[in-house]
Amino acid sequence: MLPKGFKVGGIRSELSKKEGKKDLALFISDVPASTAGIFTQNVAKAAPVLLDIERLKTGNKFSGIIANSGCANACTGTKGLEDAEYICSTCETIFELDSVSLLCASTGVIGQYLNIFKDTFTEKIKLLRDSIGTSLKNEEEAVLSIMTTDTLIKKIEKEVVVKSGKIRIWGCVKGAGMIHPNLQGLHATMLSFILTDADIESENLQVILEEAADKSFNCVSVDGDMSTNDTVIVLANGQSGIGKLSKEDLAIFVNAFDELTLDLAKSVAKDGEGATKFVEIEVKNAKTKKDAKLIASTIATSPLFKTAMFGSDANWGRIIAASGRAGVDFDINKVNIYIGGIHTFKDGFALKFSEDDARKFLSRKEVKVIVDLSMGSESSKYYTCDFSYDYIRINGDYRS
Amino acid sequence: MLPKGFKVGGIRSELSKKEGKKDLALFISDVPASTAGIFTQNVAKAAPVLLDIERLKTGNKFSGIIANSGCANACTGTKGLEDAEYICSTCETIFELDSVSLLCASTGVIGQYLNIFKDTFTEKIKLLRDSIGTSLKNEEEAVLSIMTTDTLIKKIEKEVVVKSGKIRIWGCVKGAGMIHPNLQGLHATMLSFILTDADIESENLQVILEEAADKSFNCVSVDGDMSTNDTVIVLANGQSGIGKLSKEDLAIFVNAFDELTLDLAKSVAKDGEGATKFVEIEVKNAKTKKDAKLIASTIATSPLFKTAMFGSDANWGRIIAASGRAGVDFDINKVNIYIGGIHTFKDGFALKFSEDDARKFLSRKEVKVIVDLSMGSESSKYYTCDFSYDYIRINGDYRS
Repeated sequence: MLPKGFKVGGIRSELSKKEGKKDLALFISDVPASTAGIFTQNVAKAAPVLLDIERLKTGNKFSGIIANSGCANACTGTKGLEDAEYICSTCETIFELDSVSLLCASTGVIGQYLNIFKDTFTEKIKLLRDSIGTSLKNEEEAVLSIMTTDTLIKKIEKEVVVKSGKIRIWGCVKGAGMIHPNLQGLHATMLSFILTDADIESENLQVILEEAADKSFNCVSVDGDMSTNDTVIVLANGQSGIGKLSKEDLAIFVNAFDELTLDLAKSVAKDGEGATKFVEIEVKNAKTKKDAKLIASTIATSPLFKTAMFGSDANWGRIIAASGRAGVDFDINKVNIYIGGIHTFKDGFALKFSEDDARKFLSRKEVKVIVDLSMGSESSKYYTCDFSYDYIRINGDYRS
Repeated sequence: MLPKGFKVGGIRSELSKKEGKKDLALFISDVPASTAGIFTQNVAKAAPVLLDIERLKTGNKFSGIIANSGCANACTGTKGLEDAEYICSTCETIFELDSVSLLCASTGVIGQYLNIFKDTFTEKIKLLRDSIGTSLKNEEEAVLSIMTTDTLIKKIEKEVVVKSGKIRIWGCVKGAGMIHPNLQGLHATMLSFILTDADIESENLQVILEEAADKSFNCVSVDGDMSTNDTVIVLANGQSGIGKLSKEDLAIFVNAFDELTLDLAKSVAKDGEGATKFVEIEVKNAKTKKDAKLIASTIATSPLFKTAMFGSDANWGRIIAASGRAGVDFDINKVNIYIGGIHTFKDGFALKFSEDDARKFLSRKEVKVIVDLSMGSESSKYYTCDFSYDYIRINGDYRS
C-alpha cells in the first residue's frame, strides 16, 4: 500500500523501442513534498541527473518524479537537457503544477536522444494522468515502466508504528547491470524512488538518505560499472496525519528507512544480470571502516571470485588474492576466511575442509563470505552476485 | 636462438597434478648474471616472491631461475618458504652452484603446498640438468613447463645490432588469467623471464626493467585481478663477447628491450582466458599521464566494455561511462571516441555511423579504441581482451 497522498502509475509511451514494454512512470504526491536526492558521481552525468541536481539546489519542495526506461538520455548534450526539461514541463502543465515542481530520471541505452514525438507527447502524458492511482496494479505498472534487464519487480513497503501513530514508507528500485553506485550528496543505471507520508524537512531527509545509502546502495556491485544515471530520490509529503515526528519517533523512522534501503539494495544484487546467486561479503576487524569497505568491494568486483561463486568453488585463494590487491595493508598470517560457514583459511594457513560440503553450501541461492583481518575492530558488508554465462549473453548481445 | 651462455629446459616433475604436463623449468646462465626483478604488489605475496625479494636485496649476481606450474605456493606460510628454499638449494647442489645463486617462481593454484617428494626430487633435478640445452625444443619445453591456462607458447627473441657488435635478448611469458600486474621495484600469475648476453650492471638493469614494465606489463589487464605471484626477472650474463655497452649502444639495447617487453605484454592479453580478440585502448590528450592511464585501465577492466567487445558492439556509451567513473575530471563536451577507426562520439555528441561497418571492424582479431579527452597532451595505452563465455567456463570450473 502506498503512503498517504501518493499516486503512481506507468504506461507505454514509445520512449523505449522494446515493442509493448511500458516505459514511462510517474510517482506523484497530492501536495509538494520534502525532497532528498543522491546521484551518480560519474563525470558523464546524464541529462536528467544534471537537471535534478540543479532543481534540488533550489531547496524547493517537489511534487513528483517522471521516469522513463529504454533511453538513458546520457551523452546527449544540450538537446538532452532540453528534452528532459520538456518532459517535466509537459507533465507539470497537464497536472496543473507550478513549473519546476517535478524531477525526472532515465535509464537505458547511452548516447541516444529521447524519442519524443512532440505532437503526441501531450496525449501520452494525459494517458499517464488517467492511469495513475493507489492500487497494487498501479504500483506494479510504475515499477515495470522503469525496468530494463531487471527480471523482478523490486519494491518494498513498511508500515512504521511510532509513538504518535503510523507512517508508511514505500520504495522501488530498478537495476541489474552497470551497478556499482557511488552516490553522494548533490554531487548511480540504478534508479530508486522512495515515498513516505512522514513529515520531515528536506535537509533532514537528505542526511537520512546519505547515511542510509552508505550502508546500502553504495555497498552493492553487480559488475563494478558505475552508471551515468544512478539516482535515488525520496519524497516525504507529511500526509500521514500525525504531524512532525518527535526525536524518538524520528529514530524509529530512520531505523525503518535504513532497513528498507538495505533491502532494496540487496534486491538489486539478487536480480543482478545473469546472477544465479546472491553473495554477501563481510570484512571484519579491519583497522578502519574504509579499509574494510575497500577489501569488501575489491572481492565483490573480482571476476575471478565471481566466476568461482558461479562454479560453487570454495576458492578462498581468489578471495585472499583480491583482498591483497585492495590497497590495504594487513598481515596475511592473521587472516581467517569463512565461506558459507566453513572455515577455509586460518591465520595464514589453508585448512582442510570437505570440498563436498563446501560445494553443497555454495550451491545455495545465498552465500556468505567472511574475511576476518584481526587488525582492528571495524567491519563492512558488500552485496554482489556471481558472474555467469548469462552475464556474457546479456551484455555481449548487440547494444543491450 | 638463446643469448650466448644460457641454457633452458623443462620436465615433468609431478609438482603439477595435471597428468603428463611438463611443470618444472630452468633458465640458467653458464656464469653468474646481473639480475633485475619486479614483483606483485599484492599484500599476499607467494613464498617464491618473498624469497626472490630477499635474495635480490643482497645485490649479488644470480645464475638462473627455477620455476614450476600447477601450484602457486602462495598462502603457504613458513612451510611454503622452506619448500621454495628447498627447490633452490637442491638445484644449486646438483648444478654445483654456490648457495643462494638461484631465484624461483611458481604459478598455479593458491593455498596448496608444493607436492615435493623429497626422496625423488633430487632425481627430478638431475633429469632437468640432463635435459636442458640451447635448442628450440629446449626453449619450448621451458616455456611449456610454466604454462597453466595459456593456449600459446609466448616467447620472443631479438638480435640487437649495436656499434660494437651483436647482442641477443630472449624473453618468455606465461599468463592468461588473474592478469592485472602492478609490478614495482623490489616491493605481479604472470611470469616473465628475460635473458640477455649484454653486459649491464644489475642496478642499471633494474631501472631499465622498471621503466619498460610501466609501458608494458603494467598496462595489461585480462580480468583486473592482480596475482599473488606475478614476477618478471631479467638475467644479463655479459657473454655476448662485446664487453660493456657504450652509452649509445645502451640506448639501442633499451629500445630493443622496450619493444620486447611490450610484445611480451601484448601476447598475454592476446592469449587472455577465453579471449576472442585483442583490444588496444589509447587515451589521448589527457592533462596528466596518470589521468590517461587511470581512464585507459578503467575501460580495460570494465566488464560491460569487455562484453560489448565480445559482441562486436560499437557501444561507445559504455566507454564514456567507464571513463567517467575513473576518478579523473574531464569535460565530456570535449571528448572524442574512435572505435576501430570509426568516429563514434564527437565533442559530447553521438555521431551517426554505419553499425554494419562498425560490427565488421569489431569482428576482427585486433581492435583499437581511442578516447581523446582534449584536455592536455599526455597519453597512455592499455592492452586487454574481450570477456567471453569461455572466460566464465574456464574460471567457473571447479578449482581451475
